[in-house]
Amino acid sequence: MQYHSCPEQNLDLALVNRRIEEVFSAHGRGEVVQPPKTYVALPGGDFRTMPASIPSLGLAGVKVVNVHPGNPARGLPTVMALTVLLDPATGTPRAILNATRLTDLRTGAAGAVAARHLCTMRDGLEVGLVGAGSQAQAQLDATAAWLGIDRVRVWSRRATTAEAFARKNPSFDVRAGTLARAADCDLLITTTPSREPLVRNEWVRAGTHVNAIGADAPGKQELDPALLERALVYVDDREQAVHSGEVNVPIARGQIGADRLAGTLGEVVLGRKGRRSASEVTVFDATGLAIQDLAIAKVALEVCGPGIELGFP
Amino acid sequence: MQYHSCPEQNLDLALVNRRIEEVFSAHGRGEVVQPPKTYVALPGGDFRTMPASIPSLGLAGVKVVNVHPGNPARGLPTVMALTVLLDPATGTPRAILNATRLTDLRTGAAGAVAARHLCTMRDGLEVGLVGAGSQAQAQLDATAAWLGIDRVRVWSRRATTAEAFARKNPSFDVRAGTLARAADCDLLITTTPSREPLVRNEWVRAGTHVNAIGADAPGKQELDPALLERALVYVDDREQAVHSGEVNVPIARGQIGADRLAGTLGEVVLGRKGRRSASEVTVFDATGLAIQDLAIAKVALEVCGPGIELGFP
Repeated sequence: MQYHSCPEQNLDLALVNRRIEEVFSAHGRGEVVQPPKTYVALPGGDFRTMPASIPSLGLAGVKVVNVHPGNPARGLPTVMALTVLLDPATGTPRAILNATRLTDLRTGAAGAVAARHLCTMRDGLEVGLVGAGSQAQAQLDATAAWLGIDRVRVWSRRATTAEAFARKNPSFDVRAGTLARAADCDLLITTTPSREPLVRNEWVRAGTHVNAIGADAPGKQELDPALLERALVYVDDREQAVHSGEVNVPIARGQIGADRLAGTLGEVVLGRKGRRSASEVTVFDATGLAIQDLAIAKVALEVCGPGIELGFP
Repeated sequence: MQYHSCPEQNLDLALVNRRIEEVFSAHGRGEVVQPPKTYVALPGGDFRTMPASIPSLGLAGVKVVNVHPGNPARGLPTVMALTVLLDPATGTPRAILNATRLTDLRTGAAGAVAARHLCTMRDGLEVGLVGAGSQAQAQLDATAAWLGIDRVRVWSRRATTAEAFARKNPSFDVRAGTLARAADCDLLITTTPSREPLVRNEWVRAGTHVNAIGADAPGKQELDPALLERALVYVDDREQAVHSGEVNVPIARGQIGADRLAGTLGEVVLGRKGRRSASEVTVFDATGLAIQDLAIAKVALEVCGPGIELGFP
């Protein structure tokens, strides 16, 4: 068993996208064993354990990840993660990975998979970013590995953050602007921790695909419920989405029915579900699945070189 | 963050017993956050994730443990475990421990805690062992760290195993014998993987305390349901016991009611529940709790010396 402190170092984002797409296919085919995330409350936050296996892909293991909003004031990341990969045949721990950065990347890759299958075009995309943090960057990078992006319009609660994002991305035509301007695009990506809808239904043009990434806990939401009512809404996992995804608040309030969920990204990847017209709005509601963590851990191990040998068992 | 490959090396068993008793106290006081174990099926077995926190004791983390019955034929242990300890205040991973041997030890310590509080005597005990494997040894050692043992009578399905156990323990008066002989004792400890009752009610004398350790999955049982019906039955955790402990089969079959459970070991440790007379039979039904894994990991770190530095975060 080896420990890898920087497993993301040699990752190719297009390869990550393919591997993430592959586990969503397996999810769609029902080949995945993936219990719900387990939450354990701590004084200043919580930690989650995310176990899963996909024997058909040789994957088994668990991610352990915390969320402590007060950490930045202590000089620590809000979110830190470790993934333990097991040999499915014997249960032997094979590798432990620092998964903090991998968590960002696998979330970006899920967005790229959804965009590839649900956007109306694969080139010349106008991308809108609501939120300009590390996850906005991960989404943009993963999407750019697969799709052609013409322009990016980015909004953040602090204008300086959006402007800094634009400066950090000179290889794209990125401009900071208003929320309404960002929402007027082909691919809208929301990555904020908002607890109130930010994106109004009327700002979103026909045919837009929305990757709703930010809402990952009960009470969080970024989209106008009227937009969800209008759109074809896909989720990564139905149970997790209803519990903690973009749809959690409007479903809990009865603003939309759980029957509004059109299916899962796995079904979309398999071609069983998907966009039915170029004019409808589609939404991918991402909560983050343990199988994404296992997939990116495995591909990272393939390219990252040797780790620290721990001598187990 | 450090990795510890042999964290059990300097452990004092009496100290382990005290720390395990301490987390059962916390459990009895309701200070524990401990979701049910999560099971993930694998081709040749399964793995379980066991997260928990006890903020009042500075404990947070998760154990990952597999069960692959075919492993010994491949030269691997059936059960292998890792524990990840987190700082409750920030969620930062602090240590990763090889917890294979710690798992044996913390199970032994829970038996010792139950024996101390539920046996009619603290000295001159006659101990009966049903099963003569590594868990029988862990139970005997942990109990001997706290209670005076006069004689041990051991039974195993293979007589040679019981005889080898006797030879391995020259510091005790140990003899291999029949199942009925082993069951006729003050403290009966069952540690087999049986799926049929082994210990008949009529073999167990008045006043015996039974540590029922072996049953840890649906379908497993070691005790005559009539013995459970006769006894005062305590569990480590009610939900886990009904799901996978000694009582799981008789409760599922309606042979005993779930209302027969007298309470938890935590309540016993706190003195809120316990033996009411010297003549009644008491049973502790152990399924193994995540809080035991955290407690033994923490005490092991205090005494085991430095591990391998992993540089996280």
